Order: sequence, then C-alpha cells, then structure tokens
Amino acid sequence: MKELLRVAADLDLAGVDTSATPGFVGGKEAGEVALADGAEELADLQEQLFAASRTGGDTRSVLLVLQAMDTAGKGGIVKHVIGSVDPQGVAFASFKAPTDEEKAHDFLWRIRPRVPGPGMIGVFDRSHYEDVLIHRVRGFSTPEVIEQRYPQIVDFELELVAAGTTIVKVMLHISKQEQKNRLAERLERPDKYWKYNPGDVDERQRWDAYMEAYEVAIARTDSDEAPWYVVPADRKWYARLAVQQLLLDALRGLDLQWPPADFDVQAEQKRLAAT
Amino acid sequence: MKELLRVAADLDLAGVDTSATPGFVGGKEAGEVALADGAEELADLQEQLFAASRTGGDTRSVLLVLQAMDTAGKGGIVKHVIGSVDPQGVAFASFKAPTDEEKAHDFLWRIRPRVPGPGMIGVFDRSHYEDVLIHRVRGFSTPEVIEQRYPQIVDFELELVAAGTTIVKVMLHISKQEQKNRLAERLERPDKYWKYNPGDVDERQRWDAYMEAYEVAIARTDSDEAPWYVVPADRKWYARLAVQQLLLDALRGLDLQWPPADFDVQAEQKRLAAT
Repeated sequence: MKELLRVAADLDLAGVDTSATPGFVGGKEAGEVALADGAEELADLQEQLFAASRTGGDTRSVLLVLQAMDTAGKGGIVKHVIGSVDPQGVAFASFKAPTDEEKAHDFLWRIRPRVPGPGMIGVFDRSHYEDVLIHRVRGFSTPEVIEQRYPQIVDFELELVAAGTTIVKVMLHISKQEQKNRLAERLERPDKYWKYNPGDVDERQRWDAYMEAYEVAIARTDSDEAPWYVVPADRKWYARLAVQQLLLDALRGLDLQWPPADFDVQAEQKRLAAT
Repeated sequence: MKELLRVAADLDLAGVDTSATPGFVGGKEAGEVALADGAEELADLQEQLFAASRTGGDTRSVLLVLQAMDTAGKGGIVKHVIGSVDPQGVAFASFKAPTDEEKAHDFLWRIRPRVPGPGMIGVFDRSHYEDVLIHRVRGFSTPEVIEQRYPQIVDFELELVAAGTTIVKVMLHISKQEQKNRLAERLERPDKYWKYNPGDVDERQRWDAYMEAYEVAIARTDSDEAPWYVVPADRKWYARLAVQQLLLDALRGLDLQWPPADFDVQAEQKRLAAT
C-alpha cells in the first residue's frame, strides 16, 4: 500500500482517483475488520516505542503530519486511528490560524516545541505546511518568502530525522464534489453545525489554487527521509486504514524490542519478597 | 456509585476494602460490558463539551486528577477509560520528579500551564499532590512548607472551578499485598521490566507513612467544589468502571447541548450550492 500512496515525481492531484482504494482489494466491511486488526498491532508497537524511551535510552519517535482540505477527514483519522493508541504515548498538536505572537516569529517557532519527544507518536493536525499552502493561495506571504520556506522546511525535517524522528506526511485527498456533500451534511445536522465555518466555502472557491499549492509544496519537500503520501479520502474507511498502515509500516521499520532490565532481576525479586 | 466513593470526613484508608466494588453488583464480565457502554456515552459527552467551546464560547472543562501508589493502575485508567475519548479533546499531563528548573519555582508553577483549556478533558497522572505526599513522607519539604501548601492547593483548585473546570480527584487504592503481587509480576515478565523501578520497593517500605500522608492531604483538600474519591483498585475492571462513572457524572452535570449555528444556515446552504 505504501508504495502505491507515495507521491510520484510528477504529482497531478487532479488525476488522482479520490474514491480509489489503492493496495486494498476488499470493501468497507473488510476495511473495518482490517482497521480493527491493525489497531492492536499499532497499540503494541506504540507501547514498545514508549518503553524503549523510558529505560533503553532510545530517543526515537514518530511524527504523522496531516494536511488536507476541509472535511477531508483529519479529525476522523485522529479519532479512529490515533484513538486506538494509549493516550500517554500520543503528542497531539493542532495548528490553527496563528496568534499575533506566533505571527511575530519565524513560521517554525510555534512548530518546534510541539515535535514529539522520545518514545512518542506525534500528530500534527495541520502544520508548518500551512505557511506554504494558505499563505500562497491567499497571499499572506510574498512569493519570495514562500520560496525560502521550502528549503527551510526540508532542513527542519531533516533535523528531526537526524534526531531520531520517523516522519510520515499525509495529504488526505478528497474530490471537490465530495467536499460539497460533506459541507452540505454539516449544514443539515444540528450536531454538526459546530464543525461548519462560513470561511470553508470561501476556501472551497479557491480549490484549484490549493491543489496547485499542494503540488508545489509536496514536490519541493518530498524525500526518502521525510516522504509524502497522498491518500484518496472519499472513502473514509479506506483513508483511515491507509494512514494506519503507513504508521504501522513506520513503526515496524524501527525494529522495536522490549528493553532489557536495567536492574538485577533476581536481586529485586529478593528485595521485594522481603517487604 | 459516586456517593459511595466520596471520601468520608474521618477517612481511614486501612479500613477500606480495596477489593470491594461499591455500587456495582456484577462481576468482572458485567463490569467490562458496563465499561464498553459507558465509553460510548463518554465519547459523545466529550464531543459536546468540545463543540460548545468551539462555537458557543463555553469555557468549561473537566479535570481528572489521578493519585495512587505505584502499580495501582493509573496507566490502565488512562489507556482504557480516557482512551475511549477522541484524542483531540484530551489534555494529558504526567508529572514526574520535578526538574531543577521546576524545583526553583513555586510547586504550582509547573502545574498551571497544564490545566485543561476550554472544552478539554484534562488528566493529571500524579499532580500537585505529590508536593504534599512524597514531600511529607521523604522530608523533601519542611512540615511548615507542607502545611502552607494545603490551603494553597485549595485556593488553586477553587480558582480553576471558578473559571469553569469541574474537578474530579481520585485516589486509586490498592492493598499492600496487591502491590506486591503486581510488582512481582513486573519482575517475571520481560515485557514489563520497563515499568519496574527499584525505587518502587523503597517507596513500598514507607507504605504506612504514605497512607497517612494521603489521609491528611485528602482531609485538608476535600470539598464539594473539588471532591476526592477513593476508588478500591485491587480489581482493575472495577477501578476503570468507577473512574469512568465519575467522569460521566461530571460531564452529565454540565447539561451539555450541541451549540446552535452562529451563521445563517439557509444562506450558507445557498452559498455552498452555488460553488
């Protein structure tokens, strides 16, 4: 699945079938079973990652970067994929419109303190990529400034990788029509009103400009060290399964082991027995 | 269940049956079914709390404070009770031994930035109570300083309550024998070694002093505004169910509603249709 989702050098988002299920042959029901199976392995691997940081001195971590147009399902990924992992091992960070203080700093200033510590699975719901996506589309920064940010992002991510973070960058990709359906649903259900923002329709009207901004950002920042994946997301069950599999793949690649005891087991058993 | 777990004025921890299941008549299997049922309601109420903070301007939050002797099951509560809630709505904070910088400040300095924001369920795995528990038992602070901290804690918590935080303070209470069993298990299983710390046996040898410190701390800081509950925790399934029920009760008490639309629904439907 991973190979099929990894972006190609000549990424054309308009040419991606957002309702496809690359690398998975079953339908929704089979996908949900696979997700439940994966949840157990993900929880186990997360515990091993966490354990290694606590006694083994292992500083490794995993960072999932989620980017997407509104309604594409970032929230569902967090709830249904990350939600299967022990909350103690998750460092979740949501990046909304920056505050005045954040704006006064370099764009990475607010990002750096939120990178996952040793043993953690970090999740960025939006990220430093907003500074080359909405900033490009809406002209919040000049083209020159945005041009500088791509290599700054590459350097920043390589720094994290060198420090032991495995980075998985995901764009959840829905069709413009699917977004319309999902926004319409939010306007039909009073329990979904809170998720609706009139600004979503404004951004929607800039769809093509966003797709172009994504293509440029992804092309300029994709690498084997910090790879980008474009996940078709019209089918929520598939997008969740795909992101879970990408995370599983990243964790399996760490070759995790339970850390050995850093104390004398028999001596401790004797001490304990004496109490 | 809540009334049965709320501490009495003359709390005597040694007199509590740590294997009891107050307020629940079934056994383990029924308890696990009840936990699964409660998980759905907890997730729904959490979403409403979160939603209210996002559009309704509601600043309310919930804070669960977990205190316990080692192995009593704090981690299991976080994993199995809090784990059923959307990670986006959880602010988890674990308070380990303070750093030098933290020690140089007032004991509440490191606590304040971690209190839950509007719409969040905060969880403290250990807390400001360490500064009147281990500090008393081990003499890390003078009796005079500790004596000052009780009213400081009361004031701090009342401040949070006034700002809209519902506080639920839980001591998970296991027997000394049960702790011995659990520590022994950690020494028998290589996948549990990482949870074992030789210092745990040192603290265990001060069991009675800890029980006394808990009794004093709880008596000095219990109030209707920031109540303490002592949850028998020898049976893990019961402790999880009990803490879940305490959280459910706190959330139900907020009388949450889906926030009304803060935009013109029909006008937005028209705008969307035109895109």
